Amino acid sequence: MKKLLVRGGLVVSDGKQVNCDILIEGEKIIAIGRSLSCPDAQIIDATGKLVFPGMIDSHVHIGHPNKRGSARDSFYTATRSAALGGVSTIIDFAIQWDKEKSLLETWKEKVQLMSRECVTDFALHNCPTVSEPKTIEEMDALIEEGSPSFKFYMTYSSQNRMTNDGVLYEALRKSAGTLMRIGVHAENDALINYLSEQYRQRGETDASYFAEAKPAIVENEAVHRALYFARETGGNLFLFHLTTAEGVRLVKDAKRDGIPVVAETCTHYLVLDEEYLKREDGYAYICSPPLRRKSDQEALWAALRDGSVSIVSSDHCGFDKALKREYKGDFTKIPNGLPGIDHRLRLIYTHGVRKGKISLETMVDVLSTNIAKTFGMYPRKGTISVGSDADLVIYDPNGEEIIERGIDSDSIDWTPYKGFLLEGSVDMTISRGEVLVRDGEFSGEPGRGCLILRDILQKRQK
Amino acid sequence: MKKLLVRGGLVVSDGKQVNCDILIEGEKIIAIGRSLSCPDAQIIDATGKLVFPGMIDSHVHIGHPNKRGSARDSFYTATRSAALGGVSTIIDFAIQWDKEKSLLETWKEKVQLMSRECVTDFALHNCPTVSEPKTIEEMDALIEEGSPSFKFYMTYSSQNRMTNDGVLYEALRKSAGTLMRIGVHAENDALINYLSEQYRQRGETDASYFAEAKPAIVENEAVHRALYFARETGGNLFLFHLTTAEGVRLVKDAKRDGIPVVAETCTHYLVLDEEYLKREDGYAYICSPPLRRKSDQEALWAALRDGSVSIVSSDHCGFDKALKREYKGDFTKIPNGLPGIDHRLRLIYTHGVRKGKISLETMVDVLSTNIAKTFGMYPRKGTISVGSDADLVIYDPNGEEIIERGIDSDSIDWTPYKGFLLEGSVDMTISRGEVLVRDGEFSGEPGRGCLILRDILQKRQK
Amino acid sequence: MKKLLVRGGLVVSDGKQVNCDILIEGEKIIAIGRSLSCPDAQIIDATGKLVFPGMIDSHVHIGHPNKRGSARDSFYTATRSAALGGVSTIIDFAIQWDKEKSLLETWKEKVQLMSRECVTDFALHNCPTVSEPKTIEEMDALIEEGSPSFKFYMTYSSQNRMTNDGVLYEALRKSAGTLMRIGVHAENDALINYLSEQYRQRGETDASYFAEAKPAIVENEAVHRALYFARETGGNLFLFHLTTAEGVRLVKDAKRDGIPVVAETCTHYLVLDEEYLKREDGYAYICSPPLRRKSDQEALWAALRDGSVSIVSSDHCGFDKALKREYKGDFTKIPNGLPGIDHRLRLIYTHGVRKGKISLETMVDVLSTNIAKTFGMYPRKGTISVGSDADLVIYDPNGEEIIERGIDSDSIDWTPYKGFLLEGSVDMTISRGEVLVRDGEFSGEPGRGCLILRDILQKRQK
Amino acid sequence: MKKLLVRGGLVVSDGKQVNCDILIEGEKIIAIGRSLSCPDAQIIDATGKLVFPGMIDSHVHIGHPNKRGSARDSFYTATRSAALGGVSTIIDFAIQWDKEKSLLETWKEKVQLMSRECVTDFALHNCPTVSEPKTIEEMDALIEEGSPSFKFYMTYSSQNRMTNDGVLYEALRKSAGTLMRIGVHAENDALINYLSEQYRQRGETDASYFAEAKPAIVENEAVHRALYFARETGGNLFLFHLTTAEGVRLVKDAKRDGIPVVAETCTHYLVLDEEYLKREDGYAYICSPPLRRKSDQEALWAALRDGSVSIVSSDHCGFDKALKREYKGDFTKIPNGLPGIDHRLRLIYTHGVRKGKISLETMVDVLSTNIAKTFGMYPRKGTISVGSDADLVIYDPNGEEIIERGIDSDSIDWTPYKGFLLEGSVDMTISRGEVLVRDGEFSGEPGRGCLILRDILQKRQK
Repeated sequence: MKKLLVRGGLVVSDGKQVNCDILIEGEKIIAIGRSLSCPDAQIIDATGKLVFPGMIDSHVHIGHPNKRGSARDSFYTATRSAALGGVSTIIDFAIQWDKEKSLLETWKEKVQLMSRECVTDFALHNCPTVSEPKTIEEMDALIEEGSPSFKFYMTYSSQNRMTNDGVLYEALRKSAGTLMRIGVHAENDALINYLSEQYRQRGETDASYFAEAKPAIVENEAVHRALYFARETGGNLFLFHLTTAEGVRLVKDAKRDGIPVVAETCTHYLVLDEEYLKREDGYAYICSPPLRRKSDQEALWAALRDGSVSIVSSDHCGFDKALKREYKGDFTKIPNGLPGIDHRLRLIYTHGVRKGKISLETMVDVLSTNIAKTFGMYPRKGTISVGSDADLVIYDPNGEEIIERGIDSDSIDWTPYKGFLLEGSVDMTISRGEVLVRDGEFSGEPGRGCLILRDILQKRQK
Repeated sequence: MKKLLVRGGLVVSDGKQVNCDILIEGEKIIAIGRSLSCPDAQIIDATGKLVFPGMIDSHVHIGHPNKRGSARDSFYTATRSAALGGVSTIIDFAIQWDKEKSLLETWKEKVQLMSRECVTDFALHNCPTVSEPKTIEEMDALIEEGSPSFKFYMTYSSQNRMTNDGVLYEALRKSAGTLMRIGVHAENDALINYLSEQYRQRGETDASYFAEAKPAIVENEAVHRALYFARETGGNLFLFHLTTAEGVRLVKDAKRDGIPVVAETCTHYLVLDEEYLKREDGYAYICSPPLRRKSDQEALWAALRDGSVSIVSSDHCGFDKALKREYKGDFTKIPNGLPGIDHRLRLIYTHGVRKGKISLETMVDVLSTNIAKTFGMYPRKGTISVGSDADLVIYDPNGEEIIERGIDSDSIDWTPYKGFLLEGSVDMTISRGEVLVRDGEFSGEPGRGCLILRDILQKRQK
Repeated sequence: MKKLLVRGGLVVSDGKQVNCDILIEGEKIIAIGRSLSCPDAQIIDATGKLVFPGMIDSHVHIGHPNKRGSARDSFYTATRSAALGGVSTIIDFAIQWDKEKSLLETWKEKVQLMSRECVTDFALHNCPTVSEPKTIEEMDALIEEGSPSFKFYMTYSSQNRMTNDGVLYEALRKSAGTLMRIGVHAENDALINYLSEQYRQRGETDASYFAEAKPAIVENEAVHRALYFARETGGNLFLFHLTTAEGVRLVKDAKRDGIPVVAETCTHYLVLDEEYLKREDGYAYICSPPLRRKSDQEALWAALRDGSVSIVSSDHCGFDKALKREYKGDFTKIPNGLPGIDHRLRLIYTHGVRKGKISLETMVDVLSTNIAKTFGMYPRKGTISVGSDADLVIYDPNGEEIIERGIDSDSIDWTPYKGFLLEGSVDMTISRGEVLVRDGEFSGEPGRGCLILRDILQKRQK
Repeated sequence: MKKLLVRGGLVVSDGKQVNCDILIEGEKIIAIGRSLSCPDAQIIDATGKLVFPGMIDSHVHIGHPNKRGSARDSFYTATRSAALGGVSTIIDFAIQWDKEKSLLETWKEKVQLMSRECVTDFALHNCPTVSEPKTIEEMDALIEEGSPSFKFYMTYSSQNRMTNDGVLYEALRKSAGTLMRIGVHAENDALINYLSEQYRQRGETDASYFAEAKPAIVENEAVHRALYFARETGGNLFLFHLTTAEGVRLVKDAKRDGIPVVAETCTHYLVLDEEYLKREDGYAYICSPPLRRKSDQEALWAALRDGSVSIVSSDHCGFDKALKREYKGDFTKIPNGLPGIDHRLRLIYTHGVRKGKISLETMVDVLSTNIAKTFGMYPRKGTISVGSDADLVIYDPNGEEIIERGIDSDSIDWTPYKGFLLEGSVDMTISRGEVLVRDGEFSGEPGRGCLILRDILQKRQK
């Protein structure tokens, strides 16, 4: 089998920094050591470089549909730009748009599509839209398929995606003591609708009103409620995109009381803020939950440091700026979401690690290791260990650049991070032993990505 | 003006027991003292008796409508039986059944009706059913009319009474720092519907399933949510009919944090429990929230002792047992509610005070004084003080009786308390100086009851 | 028997303000009413005046001994100035200075002395100084004598007054479920000594260093510890002189958890602050705990409003300023304590009620009613009720004055409140029907004051 | 340099189990891999075995002195038995028995002694006994020597080891934001003395009374106090030997609030309980804190699972049973402490892992990894990583044995674990590449152990 020897890098994984070499055979890491030698291996010189486990982006909406115009990226273009940014595994969603289809059918169709196109490995969160007992029953088939993570929308009644507290409560009950993860998009639907109506009646629907028309209470209440259901059921709650200081406080309280919750935030909540909505092109920055205040940003960084928030994803959603501009006068109509699958690692490295907000070890944890652990991929993914998949990023900490465009700018006409500084660059991305990116150049066949089956058989002891 | 001198009783009011006389002139108490003399006063001998301020029942649904058959009591028959049970003031609801009518119109119509029939004094909680910004605006008119208390249904979507989190949140915001009271019927509507559907699919709709189909989480979550809105807004939350040990815990936590919440429970949650639903006539005991466990009962009594729950009302609702029996196989159809405006004082005295669960002073507080304070009637009502309305109950602690029927058994064909022991009896009920009940005999004209205007002008310092 | 009729005042008692007359016969209030008439009563015209229950000062050290020079006031001069300030009952301490004497002997001697001299009624907190099991046993005799309140010094090892955690823990255990009150002077002795030594080594012993050499942690830790013992034992803890915002927070947490704690603060912590220690005559302001910050003052006022602190005493201690001046360079030697038995009511009325920090009702509660309730004197003391002792203050809210000296300036050469504004004045102080103060003139025989026996027989239900 | 190749074992380290080989060169691990080959390496076959990082025992009292008779083990005999039980590093104490000596002198003397005798690597916690400001100053010299961990005794006033709250508070203040660790032996000295006196007066001094004469409150209060000081100072608190369920609750609360506390428990609190004190030879089981209840045991196991307690040490103290027997009638005189440096790993493996109370990964964390991290030795110690010291245990999970005696039974005449089942055995202990134990046989020179310098230079980001 083909062998690679990654030499001389500073390997950052599992909370440690170690100078050592990594030997890869086929798709696996087979040795880690000082001055390893292997005559038949191809040598990759990582001297002066950082070596990370392959990044995982556990929250992306590739080619997301919208009645006003869909995102134009494909699984091929999006995972290619992901790989160029150091990502070797993504998790997208199998949303039950057609309520007549079972969850399993929904999932299978999406798997088929992704299997044809993805260049990175992938998995799916299942996203039920039917608030009936049968949903709970249908979850079993997915668990057996190795797809035990779910997302319930507590809002978006207007988009037919919302489920109610009843099915959420039962799903959390079902998850107690298992390895299932019950995620929520936590926003209070009634409060959103009421306040939108208030702003509509006042004629205040410009994007600049968006943050105040969807204030923190909208999210905080839903987080508070979901945590209460988790408390009462013992269920494994996952909070997608936590954005507020108060949300962090609620999560801390819950963890203190032993509630098995895991919380995620996203790149944009860490580096952008609500002032962007007041800009001339503020309409482009509409996403949900909305961008928040500087003080929320600081609370999120602190939460990454102390572990109360343990994952940073992109919540990538590739709506064009041009599409958003069409509805700029009415925030209730602008398609929600920001692209970002590409620059996550470099942004967090630059604005997190280099600015002293988090350590290098923490960065690797929140972008890779913790994600693998939370979603049942560890230690296959998320770690540089003997026996693990040979998914690596070789990162050159030197050099800097100002963002001009997104990596996948052929598909998506903008990036919200234009003008941001990036320090260092992704020299190489390796996925299961295959070099997908070398010196910033991508090579990889559509469909080479694998579905990652996830562990469901045993309850792991903590 | 006519004078009455109540002599020789043990007066229980404002946390004290004092042997003294009470002199009444016209509608007011004008003196309290030892061996008062007043040559022109009619003497009422209370030797060996307890004298309480007139009882207030702040949660009654008289003549409540239901599509399957309405309650058959009238404001005359119900307030008469209230008076026979020691009550001199009631608070009913002005429910906005017709969503086209303003809150003020709704209230005025109900006031008119009650003014014609009531024999006790009365007031109303306003009950909006429209989840729109105009509801918040319409509240002002009621505050100016001296009717500053409201109730929002967090459930009953099926009965067109439910409002959503948006309008509740705004109402709480509006109440912050005022004397308004924003009450809630706290049950999670989606959870109720989901679980009902689950039981329906399993064919488990007999009354005996009711308590488990509407478990404590249904109420607890809504309490938890309402308290969170109160916390974030500073609003004056009132919790109608708290029934669970967990609910008590949530209220304690909130009070510790300075949230201005007041919680009520009802007679039936203190003396009945979910076992009643398993009886042959369990259907009759359907009410919402459902009857709970013995352990919840004990938590509620403890909460009365420590003040975390400070009001006991009847939640009187006079549906006939015969009516309920018609739907006995399907708890989703049985009209909800239990009659109980009549025996509240005697039940709490017997099963609370005499059993050592609460003191006599606490009983007077939770049945009268605290209600007057919470709803802006104190010190006009709720206390035996110079200058207060001459509303008195003279209670003979001797003697005992087993309940056979409700006092208003001509209108309502049953009482849930049949077979319960009552110790002592209501010798006399006096309302604004008029003896409504003497030796258990009622005399009083329909319409003699007054609307009680309530204080809204100034924020009282605590 | 002699009768007095107090007419036309605004009576403030038990949380209400009522315009009414008060009829006194002998030592008792026998009637309260509108336009009372009593031909044989002497009339006291209180028109335009406020009428309060007699004030109680539950924390005074009259004639306090000190090796460097004792306080020079006597029980006669001090209670006379108390009466002139509206106080009709005081509680001093029976400190076991002689460790060979039993607690009972100690108490009896002090009672004898006070019985000869006091012009107001009085009681004593017992103050053991022996940390041995026999102390716990000796408490029984005092309970039987009607003296069930105690004070344990957690500091003052240098003055032979300190007891240790062992005897405090056992005393709290003994008090659980009884009407005993276990008070503490809460300061951490070791921390005081350690920090004093640190300042001594640095030569920083001027009075201006006092507040920082005895920082809030000194008190907060001891409060935290005493509350923990109360939590674990269920004991009835009383916190003398709470002074810090953090202390208030700890008390709130404890109350939320059902710990039966009552907390007191003192006049000086409400109106003076640590800046006084930096003045030229800062030495005079040495007391323990030290004066604190403005922010602590605000927290204490807020705590009075919300009830977490429910008593304001004077902690009167009449050391002369001249005596204190002798040791001005060394805060470890300056006798601790400030006089203040005289102006408490007028200061709190002026700087609390008139400045809108607390209501008139709250003022009466914290200066009288709550004290009577906490120490077993209610409803004999602390309320204007039929059957209660005729202890009244008639307060003229008009007029104002700047403090020049203390009322007892013949004994004590200074007052810490010099220059403070006083609004209103004490027109009359009545004690058990005897007018002690009329138009600011005192008349009353030494020894007319009675020892007040306190309730120990039954555990009162709340 | 000499090379070792450990082949075929299941390596458990850093939260993972991986089948792989370990290549050692000199004192370091230089490679980890699948099917590693190295022609010049000596092969160690670990097929079917578990491979752990070398165990660390961070709480031992070797050769502990006592006025009634000292422990008879030496650093040679004790570290030899430690090695036979899988331990490759120990941390003992440099107690300032001579208060005239500085902390640095005290530490140097102990280091000299240990350097001559130890066969395992070692470090010291410094243990000041002087409660004066100079103690705080003297800590600096130790930090510079790479010995930044301290222990303060909150009790043992009778043994001249106790320090007071003042110096503890200042030490915690000093540690805030550094890598220092301020440990405490948390027991309330006054409470111990008071209660002992109570039992002495009653003649109840038999060992069987020990647990109740030193009840949980003794420890809990001191834990509560130390945590409060940590909270107020931000100091790095370390809790030696936590034993109670309530202590666990307090630690959880502290962690929730961000207090940087680390808590340890010991083998005996996990597998022995207070019933042992009631046995005929109960005197032998006297240690402080005392053995507790079964319910405390369960709370401690749960705390290991959830991470609130993260270290298990032995608190080894080798007093002979014969010595203890001499004072058997008086628990106040019996030398405190239990031997246990030898069987810790096998006991925790058998009664923790095999009984399903903790996972294998957690066992390695609490016996090795977490200790290295807490005391500044990671990743040099506590992990099987490239570049780390080659400290390994090869553990054979097969076979079982009943404990007959301690490993060092020549020095210490008993083991408290006699009769306990042990599953599996320590095949090999490797320390810095040197095989100290092979097939249960020890070989290693006295003095081969090294002092481990610890990291103090930078504040590590979490």
